[in-house]
Amino acid sequence: MNKIRTIDKDSGAVVCDAGCILEELNSQISQHGLLMPIDLGAKGSCHIGGNISTNAGGIRYIKYGSLHGSVLGLEVLPNGKILNNLSTLLKDNTGYNLNQIFIGAEGTLGIITGVSILAAKKPKHNNLIIMGMNSFENVMQTFRKTKSELLEILSAFEYCDNLSMDITLKGLQKPNPFNRFYNYYVFIETSGSNQDHDHEKIMNLFEGLQSSKIIENGIMASDMSQIAKLWELRESMIVAHTKFGDTYTLDLSLPITKADQAVTDLKDYLEKINVYDKTKPYDDSLHYVKCVTGFGHIGDGNLHLNIIVDKYDDSFTATLEKFVFGYVRDLKGSISAEHGVGLLKPDILHYSKSQTAIELMKTIKASIDPKGIMNPYKVLPA
Amino acid sequence: MNKIRTIDKDSGAVVCDAGCILEELNSQISQHGLLMPIDLGAKGSCHIGGNISTNAGGIRYIKYGSLHGSVLGLEVLPNGKILNNLSTLLKDNTGYNLNQIFIGAEGTLGIITGVSILAAKKPKHNNLIIMGMNSFENVMQTFRKTKSELLEILSAFEYCDNLSMDITLKGLQKPNPFNRFYNYYVFIETSGSNQDHDHEKIMNLFEGLQSSKIIENGIMASDMSQIAKLWELRESMIVAHTKFGDTYTLDLSLPITKADQAVTDLKDYLEKINVYDKTKPYDDSLHYVKCVTGFGHIGDGNLHLNIIVDKYDDSFTATLEKFVFGYVRDLKGSISAEHGVGLLKPDILHYSKSQTAIELMKTIKASIDPKGIMNPYKVLPA
Repeated sequence: MNKIRTIDKDSGAVVCDAGCILEELNSQISQHGLLMPIDLGAKGSCHIGGNISTNAGGIRYIKYGSLHGSVLGLEVLPNGKILNNLSTLLKDNTGYNLNQIFIGAEGTLGIITGVSILAAKKPKHNNLIIMGMNSFENVMQTFRKTKSELLEILSAFEYCDNLSMDITLKGLQKPNPFNRFYNYYVFIETSGSNQDHDHEKIMNLFEGLQSSKIIENGIMASDMSQIAKLWELRESMIVAHTKFGDTYTLDLSLPITKADQAVTDLKDYLEKINVYDKTKPYDDSLHYVKCVTGFGHIGDGNLHLNIIVDKYDDSFTATLEKFVFGYVRDLKGSISAEHGVGLLKPDILHYSKSQTAIELMKTIKASIDPKGIMNPYKVLPA
Repeated sequence: MNKIRTIDKDSGAVVCDAGCILEELNSQISQHGLLMPIDLGAKGSCHIGGNISTNAGGIRYIKYGSLHGSVLGLEVLPNGKILNNLSTLLKDNTGYNLNQIFIGAEGTLGIITGVSILAAKKPKHNNLIIMGMNSFENVMQTFRKTKSELLEILSAFEYCDNLSMDITLKGLQKPNPFNRFYNYYVFIETSGSNQDHDHEKIMNLFEGLQSSKIIENGIMASDMSQIAKLWELRESMIVAHTKFGDTYTLDLSLPITKADQAVTDLKDYLEKINVYDKTKPYDDSLHYVKCVTGFGHIGDGNLHLNIIVDKYDDSFTATLEKFVFGYVRDLKGSISAEHGVGLLKPDILHYSKSQTAIELMKTIKASIDPKGIMNPYKVLPA
């Protein structure tokens, strides 16, 4: 269950078992000049079949888009019959695209056993830039200028607030890459074919951002080991948080410009209900909530909102979710951007989906899995 | 039914009525620095709702990928109820992605009335290069080098054979852009943010291809009106064919390297059954079949295989389809890459799809449209 079956170097179509580990898969196809169109912190342990079942997102979504676009075919076991739809064709308009309904269905419609996915051409050069800035408005200004000026070489754009960075550096015991802290940081990755061209574009962007006072400082890594070291800061943020207490990690989709306001509004709410004091340092607070942080994929409008507490508590969970999910619903956002529904969220699906939509999901579930034996109790409410 | 409802300049999410004409939609959003992720010859008359219902492909597929990746939300009328799934979120993992089953379903599951689609950032500069070469092997060599060297700026890679070009120039009464004919041509489009960088990459590619004798000649257009003029040759190929007789236009997916062999094999077969003589010029042949041509989207393995005949004939249609569809099935290709199934192909779906897959499609159709009133007799066999 962890073998690559075929690789088409011309088209980029890779067919493999569902049990291939993402990082190993990527390392094997990279020998053929290809790159997996998905990358995420858990790459060393997650399986490609699971990535597809949960419709994973990750840090290169802004460049390579959704798995709905890059999955070419699936081999699925719904209800005892093998559906071999392992096409390697980039285009195929013969009937309904059945693969699509299994992407993100979390195994509730069938078990994915094989995968055909469109790998990207591996870029020749990467660069990673981290910039420090004063305000979230500066983050948005940097995002807009970066999207415009780095256009075709932009492969990731992530942001974090000061507290996320502080906790990550302390939690991982890493030195601060800058000589001070900034209120906000962005991580920008480029992928291109000509390092001179890429450097020129990056330097132009950097100088423009600095001369217009949008950013305070920036550092750039161009060799793979330096890049990996800096990416680790971003990829280990959740792990670092958990060193300071039980951590709620909410995974929200909302309009990009509202990401930081959501963090502020949650802090205000938690102060109002007397479980938090934002003037107290997270490692020296007597309140139940130690801190609230925000980071995430700005390019995709995906905020990871994190709350470190003394200890998980059911009553607080309910209070927290009621506030945050209502907040997200009012912004027409999603209560689960890339982490899925699983066992925990079926009953709160209505925050993000209409009754008509949920009914249609149930209709599809009933038609494909009439006995309800595929991954029961998950995704859909009873 | 032809209004843009909202545009989010930061994320690129565009929400509009299904009746918007693709070209007008593109022209309106381009004022906001955005570009539709789909482009095709019929853009002046086709509707975005139809593009999505038929899962249209087109010439920029190699850059922006499938509509399954760029459609963010749909408003659909299945069976009397409005399913408002018009999300503008790039990521949303709450339940099954219902939008996906309506993409390419050709209206058989519901009528699309509204669309939310992720537009791309509009590039600052485009270039179009046409190259002439001796063999299809040269086309493949050019494709591989282009994909590697133009990587992030490559936005289209099309090929045509000599006969397609000849017929197109004569049919449209256009001058030959070269001073002679070549056996094969490729059309390469670039989209980038820095014209100097793009030109340098293109010139490096061009010199490499010329010095290694892969190509014979090439021309490049960099201003929009020149580019449009040259693109017209490619976009009007089918129209030009129809000036010389009734034209069968088959739309096939198959392994990229086999595209030209398929054209040759069909010619041989038609000679064998005595309806064609490939030594006779297409405008001066006494045979039923005047000529067979091939062109298409090499980057997507999508061949348009065209047969000009005296007059459409049911018996010949059956003979032709039996040969070609069997040929494509043996290569694990698809009998309809981007043109869909419609009324004509339900009974031959089995050439591209397994019985299990067709049964599952029928199950889904029956569950969503139990009375069978949505676009009946289309897509699925009875």
